[in-house]
Amino acid sequence: MSIVHRRSVKTYWSICPTKFAMKTCNPLRTITESLNLMPNPKKKLIPLSIGDPTVFGNLQACSEIQDAVVEAAASGLHNGYKPTLGWHEARQAVAKYSAHQGNVKPEDVILCNGCSSAVDMIISVLVHPGQNILCARPGYSIYGTISAGFDIELRHYNLLADENWEIDLDHLESLIDEKTAAVVITNPSNPCGSVFSRQHLEKVIAIAEKHFLPIIADEIYENIVFPGVEYTSVASLSENVPVLSCGGLSKRFLVPGWRLGWIIVHDRHDQLTEIRKGLTNLTGRLLGSNSLIQAALPAILSRTPQSFYDDLNCSLQKTAHMAYDLLRQIRGLNPVMPQGAMYMMVGIEMELFPCFHNEMEFVCALVEEQSVFCLPGECFKFPNFMRIVITVPAEVMREACQRIHEFCHQHSLLDKRIITNGI
Amino acid sequence: MSIVHRRSVKTYWSICPTKFAMKTCNPLRTITESLNLMPNPKKKLIPLSIGDPTVFGNLQACSEIQDAVVEAAASGLHNGYKPTLGWHEARQAVAKYSAHQGNVKPEDVILCNGCSSAVDMIISVLVHPGQNILCARPGYSIYGTISAGFDIELRHYNLLADENWEIDLDHLESLIDEKTAAVVITNPSNPCGSVFSRQHLEKVIAIAEKHFLPIIADEIYENIVFPGVEYTSVASLSENVPVLSCGGLSKRFLVPGWRLGWIIVHDRHDQLTEIRKGLTNLTGRLLGSNSLIQAALPAILSRTPQSFYDDLNCSLQKTAHMAYDLLRQIRGLNPVMPQGAMYMMVGIEMELFPCFHNEMEFVCALVEEQSVFCLPGECFKFPNFMRIVITVPAEVMREACQRIHEFCHQHSLLDKRIITNGI
Repeated sequence: MSIVHRRSVKTYWSICPTKFAMKTCNPLRTITESLNLMPNPKKKLIPLSIGDPTVFGNLQACSEIQDAVVEAAASGLHNGYKPTLGWHEARQAVAKYSAHQGNVKPEDVILCNGCSSAVDMIISVLVHPGQNILCARPGYSIYGTISAGFDIELRHYNLLADENWEIDLDHLESLIDEKTAAVVITNPSNPCGSVFSRQHLEKVIAIAEKHFLPIIADEIYENIVFPGVEYTSVASLSENVPVLSCGGLSKRFLVPGWRLGWIIVHDRHDQLTEIRKGLTNLTGRLLGSNSLIQAALPAILSRTPQSFYDDLNCSLQKTAHMAYDLLRQIRGLNPVMPQGAMYMMVGIEMELFPCFHNEMEFVCALVEEQSVFCLPGECFKFPNFMRIVITVPAEVMREACQRIHEFCHQHSLLDKRIITNGI
Repeated sequence: MSIVHRRSVKTYWSICPTKFAMKTCNPLRTITESLNLMPNPKKKLIPLSIGDPTVFGNLQACSEIQDAVVEAAASGLHNGYKPTLGWHEARQAVAKYSAHQGNVKPEDVILCNGCSSAVDMIISVLVHPGQNILCARPGYSIYGTISAGFDIELRHYNLLADENWEIDLDHLESLIDEKTAAVVITNPSNPCGSVFSRQHLEKVIAIAEKHFLPIIADEIYENIVFPGVEYTSVASLSENVPVLSCGGLSKRFLVPGWRLGWIIVHDRHDQLTEIRKGLTNLTGRLLGSNSLIQAALPAILSRTPQSFYDDLNCSLQKTAHMAYDLLRQIRGLNPVMPQGAMYMMVGIEMELFPCFHNEMEFVCALVEEQSVFCLPGECFKFPNFMRIVITVPAEVMREACQRIHEFCHQHSLLDKRIITNGI
């Protein structure tokens, strides 16, 4: 049987991008570009906006892991393709490293091109077009960037700033309907830096179980938890709810550029057999992550001394405390002290700064006048807040807080009243 | 306005993968798994199937590029995120390295997670669901793997084995209709190892221009061209047809595991402005490729001595010649001498091997009896052929050819007749 094709009818060049590509948009980029930021040329820019712990140079990967990669590169033995699911020895190392999450076998681990690729693959396999997933507000934007192209709806459950960013459980449950495919839990949180308690996580898992919803646990900040704070992985608490946990080297090892992430499939009662097949299929698109980092992974995960994690967490906590103490003295600002990750959210009482319509204008003016750039809450669907990173050197953080102080002093209604009354 | 969601109605666990994931399938994997191969335990397996030049150890990346990566890793300066489009210095280096393609600016280069990711991004941005793209038959399977999930149809234009695998231009043009989005040209070819002449490429470009179709030029084997053969990039010949060229380090530098590929956008009359935006969006899914390889890229592209390329190409040509000479002496086999890349196609006169219904059974029995594994033509939509890799050491290739000879001798009808007549 011969097929007759309808003849080509094009008479001019017309090449338009797919909806998939156009809807795949990063709001952080869109919003920051729209702000048209112009730092004050007289002051050096302090970018408290970038979620990359390496930019200031104060935080460095430990020598053990640098050496492991140098060794892998120098050996010449790891230049070839690794299996698309990842090198077996590396998957084994991740399984062992993740024993706190439960019984993890190497076959449960899939290596990915960074944690964003892990999230991409999980959403691609799990969520059908027209379905929805539940994500935190405030929350990191990558879930939306990945979902939009697939016509997946994001529904945002509220985090409660006054209750250490715990989930509003009633609100979460009210969002669930027949088209809900999964609950995303980001813990520790970007942008809040909060860490959920075991008891709170158990309540979230109970809701997921009641509604037969798998959990996507974005645990990329797993080891960045401040001294004195207890961290519990979602999978370690779930008996019946399947959990797809995402992790990676990026943040905890201070090497986000290496693009090595992973998925850990925590199946419970063989609910994810077909999902595993789908994930295996999807690895055929990218053909795996960098082979040298995979080769170094066993050494990275086993040789990194405990002191590296401890020093990092102490240092971040110290900087966070300092910023918290300085910022909460500023009238109109309400910082929320984090417990982990690399961020702090700072509430802005916008009514005290009537010259700005919203926090976007606030952060914009802060750049123009003081050359300090904080991300507006809008980037996380949470207006009237801004996010600052706490990975900066202490002296830079102090300087930034002083500039923010000066800025708020100049623009605050309260301060102006005091000045006016004083005349 | 409050939105009332339809309540959740799930009463049991039911988690099924998306069509996107299930349709993303790699036929090489599916077919080879279905063959259920059992090598002869008395003979060491010779895998002439794997398109990874590093597996036998005879071909090694040159020290200049190993050193560049070791240097980048040891410096500790490149652990952070690079821009999602790629590090500017690295894009600049690719632009300079690709000057033979035409006037390439750093902004025209996008770094990707291997060439497969480059192809993935181009198809994702360019081809709308329901549209079709034209690909070679025989052809590499990645285009189908990537397209199926997006409901993109692959239409296969014939390559002519008797005319050094040139494109059947009439057939190509007959496939074009109003839903055709692009023509894919793989040059040098996987699986054929052929290299198109300038004159032939000009004819293909003329057809694309007539029908206003952009060209996706998969040029990952660009530098693997045998001595005496002229290679011309598609972009260097096109005046009006926009070309998206894909390349990378993988094959030519013998480092496929490093996952560093690139897209070069050759726009002609601003037909691709929106496509560039879409590509930029798509880089937000993976957040770039490995930073250490990006950091090493300028050194890799500038320091690799010409002798490395020359030695590699001489060595591959020598092995190909040897295999060609040995295989064409075998009755029932018709090898086609390649001009580049890493492969040779070998025609099988199936009527001379009546004990096998098709070439799948042929290659299967070849593994069981002689422990030599060649990929069946079915993997490339081209029955009655098999593909062998020419990256193996000369002595291994000789051994493989001898075993193939023995196998064919035992199963060929002709040989049996001669034996019978001789009695």
